[in-house]
Amino acid sequence: MTPEEFRRFGHQLVDWVADYRAGLEAHPVQAPVAPGEIRAQLPASPPDQPEDMQAVLADLDRIVMPGITHWQSPRFFGYFPANAPLAGVLGDLVSTGLGVIGLSWQSGPAVTELEEVVTDWVRQMVGLSPAWSGVIQDTASTSTLVALLCARERSTGYAMARGGLQAEAAPLVVYVCAQSHSSVDKAALLAGFGRDQVRLVPFDDAYAMRADALAAMVEEDLARGWRPCAVVATTGTTATTAVDPVGAIAAVARRHGLWLHVDAAMAGSAMILPECRWMWDGIEAADSLVLNAHKWLGVPFDCSLYFVRDPQHLMRVMSTNPSFLQSSVDGQVKNLRDWGIPLGRRFRALKLWFVIREQGVEALRARLRRDMANARWLAEQVAAAPGWRVLAPVALQTVCLRHEPPGLEGAALDAHTTGWAERINRSGAAYLTPAVLDGRWMVRVSVGAETTEHAHVAALWDAMRRAAEGPG
Amino acid sequence: MTPEEFRRFGHQLVDWVADYRAGLEAHPVQAPVAPGEIRAQLPASPPDQPEDMQAVLADLDRIVMPGITHWQSPRFFGYFPANAPLAGVLGDLVSTGLGVIGLSWQSGPAVTELEEVVTDWVRQMVGLSPAWSGVIQDTASTSTLVALLCARERSTGYAMARGGLQAEAAPLVVYVCAQSHSSVDKAALLAGFGRDQVRLVPFDDAYAMRADALAAMVEEDLARGWRPCAVVATTGTTATTAVDPVGAIAAVARRHGLWLHVDAAMAGSAMILPECRWMWDGIEAADSLVLNAHKWLGVPFDCSLYFVRDPQHLMRVMSTNPSFLQSSVDGQVKNLRDWGIPLGRRFRALKLWFVIREQGVEALRARLRRDMANARWLAEQVAAAPGWRVLAPVALQTVCLRHEPPGLEGAALDAHTTGWAERINRSGAAYLTPAVLDGRWMVRVSVGAETTEHAHVAALWDAMRRAAEGPG
Ligand SMILES: Cc1ncc(COP(=O)(O)O)c(C=O)c1O
Ligand SMILES: Cc1ncc(COP(=O)(O)O)c(C=O)c1O
Repeated sequence: MTPEEFRRFGHQLVDWVADYRAGLEAHPVQAPVAPGEIRAQLPASPPDQPEDMQAVLADLDRIVMPGITHWQSPRFFGYFPANAPLAGVLGDLVSTGLGVIGLSWQSGPAVTELEEVVTDWVRQMVGLSPAWSGVIQDTASTSTLVALLCARERSTGYAMARGGLQAEAAPLVVYVCAQSHSSVDKAALLAGFGRDQVRLVPFDDAYAMRADALAAMVEEDLARGWRPCAVVATTGTTATTAVDPVGAIAAVARRHGLWLHVDAAMAGSAMILPECRWMWDGIEAADSLVLNAHKWLGVPFDCSLYFVRDPQHLMRVMSTNPSFLQSSVDGQVKNLRDWGIPLGRRFRALKLWFVIREQGVEALRARLRRDMANARWLAEQVAAAPGWRVLAPVALQTVCLRHEPPGLEGAALDAHTTGWAERINRSGAAYLTPAVLDGRWMVRVSVGAETTEHAHVAALWDAMRRAAEGPG
Repeated sequence: MTPEEFRRFGHQLVDWVADYRAGLEAHPVQAPVAPGEIRAQLPASPPDQPEDMQAVLADLDRIVMPGITHWQSPRFFGYFPANAPLAGVLGDLVSTGLGVIGLSWQSGPAVTELEEVVTDWVRQMVGLSPAWSGVIQDTASTSTLVALLCARERSTGYAMARGGLQAEAAPLVVYVCAQSHSSVDKAALLAGFGRDQVRLVPFDDAYAMRADALAAMVEEDLARGWRPCAVVATTGTTATTAVDPVGAIAAVARRHGLWLHVDAAMAGSAMILPECRWMWDGIEAADSLVLNAHKWLGVPFDCSLYFVRDPQHLMRVMSTNPSFLQSSVDGQVKNLRDWGIPLGRRFRALKLWFVIREQGVEALRARLRRDMANARWLAEQVAAAPGWRVLAPVALQTVCLRHEPPGLEGAALDAHTTGWAERINRSGAAYLTPAVLDGRWMVRVSVGAETTEHAHVAALWDAMRRAAEGPG
């Protein structure tokens, strides 16, 4: 494709994206397709000869679009908000258009330096002290894996440089909460800790990790000759946005030399609101934290921000220095390949830079406050409606709820819950995520798509009442 | 930013990208900036109020662009080609514009199904049997880490589900080659294997791993009670594009139950050429392989294709199944979160689909053949020129060379080599990567940017002669 052809099709696709975003309301939120339906329409083999771009764009509309679940829809209340504001789309277009790869500082100095600057902007926005350094990773899953690898190496005095994990006699232990995100468990297992040493710390009535229980487990493990290595606290759990007591957990961590990683993947965005910062009180005592700018804050995926207190340690765990990546400025510059797992890096800082500048911090704050007010409003309606229950404190923008008709219990109640949620999802009117809490299915309403206004939440509440209370 | 504003700025940026690509020749290839120069021009803090998009775009030109090293330039001969054809830029624009996240099949059915189809297209393009299944990862570094985690778990019968790596008595060993990419070593160490058990297999005169030496090392390790776990072979090493004998290595691997991972990150693209497939003869006996579509093949970064023979095993190592990600179609569909480390997934298959369809396989083949012919031409000139030497077989598109003026040896020769390469890079006329081979600095010329024609290679050869033979 020549630049002139790109100009033509590029304009067409910009309009296509603009039309898509302007027309989001028209789409059923959940893709109304059956498994295999998209695949069956695609040719089994690649074309030998070039195809007309118009044919590709026609297939995009005809084959791909029916298979899209519309995360940017104002009626998307599933999983978590994964906002992709249009300014971020532009920043990403520039990144792909440049096609620059940040293998080393020299291979694209702006890739590294803009990332240094904008991650530091976010640090200031969320009220962290200058003792933190940030880097962009793809996801929180990866950031947490990096954290636990760093924990493993700190506890073992860099066993990786000698006999590795196998040479360590005392079993290393990682403490997580039963409410932690599945990526935490996965990261621990991938980092080589066995399931037997990934201990689930109990939680309290508000679904927050109990620091006293953590302390007791650490003592117990020490007594049997195990070596406590790391604890992962969550600021804003996935199920209920519960808030682990970071300060109290940090005290235990400090006492026993545990690495403290804080998973603020979702709720980290809310730390731009001073009134929310109590949620991670004590954060300065953590060793690492992750905050997904690609969630509520609104930078197109992927843009997970990983902050550490000791970048030297991170680099010691992650660094490689083959001759072909050395340059005469090494020592004066950051080489971000040594801050994570991948070597190649895309220019992701651009989209973060575009979004923050185009919106400004005050507008970001206003949007998050709007979403929290909408969630509170919904929780109030639910709490006041007969037969309905709010199941967990609404700390942010997620409302966990259940319709509990008299006499319905156990499996029958579960069937009722997943039934009405599925009916809403299948109707295309809104998208919700059922999940299990305390062994029972419930429905999570995650407010926070960029386009979601009060009216959409009010319409959702109507739809939920109809779906759950209606004839079924 | 409203859809209407996006339309306006989007058209402007499409033109900006088109102009950038049309004017690539005008830029010095290496960014002519000093460390800290970009950072110093950026505000230390984020704006509270929205800024005018025109100001952002002006800063893009004024501050960011001087800090770009132009990987898409026809005079880029550094590292490896990281082609980002414009059709791929369009595919990526659609992906970002949709903002759909493939957490599960249901969260975006087309994300999963298009990925299934296009990775299978690539499988066919590179001549792999239908026994392979593919998935898109971010980078080869990550793919190789995934491979070694799978190897670790296969060798230990899923130790992760019990006591982890620490509970395994016999030290697990990974075999790599001294010519392997640094990411292989890094992956082994991150997976928990210690440096002491990452054994460097010697290479032959052509810089290829010696299968006989591998066999001997495995025997030696078995004799001392160690447990051989995995071997990583490279098809197309980074320094010289050397070709490890996959078939012979596979025979050793099979004999001793080693996991065989093949790193074809760079050269995998060339497997679309039937005449190059001898390079990975025996590949069907491997357990996993990685092929970076974001390199020579030309799909905008990131798009690393990871292929496995046993997806069930991969899923068993990687899977998590929290309630909020379950859906009524589980069991009938692929959930790609269980095929790698991250949970969130961008719709990366779109850019691969756009590129293959817009170009067609024949045109991709023709481009790669052009690059190989250009590399051969350069190697012939170098071999024929007095005082110049080609240092390794030119299997693909990389020429390793040195100018060796009479009487210059050791450190003085190194200084000469890095000196003239730096002079070229600093001049902006072309970009080359110096690297160490056999303990001596040499210069790698990696041909293969999409825009590089014969004339650019001829001009490079002139520039090299002037830089190396001139008065200095
Ligand atoms: C608390 C928490 N941690 C981690 C994750 C995983 O995020 P990612 O997809 O970036 O790995 C999520 C969201 O899915 C989350 O809510
Ligand atoms: C042979 C080989 N393996 C791995 C890599 C690493 O690639 P990535 O940046 O995708 O991790 C490269 C290129 O840098 C390579 O040439």
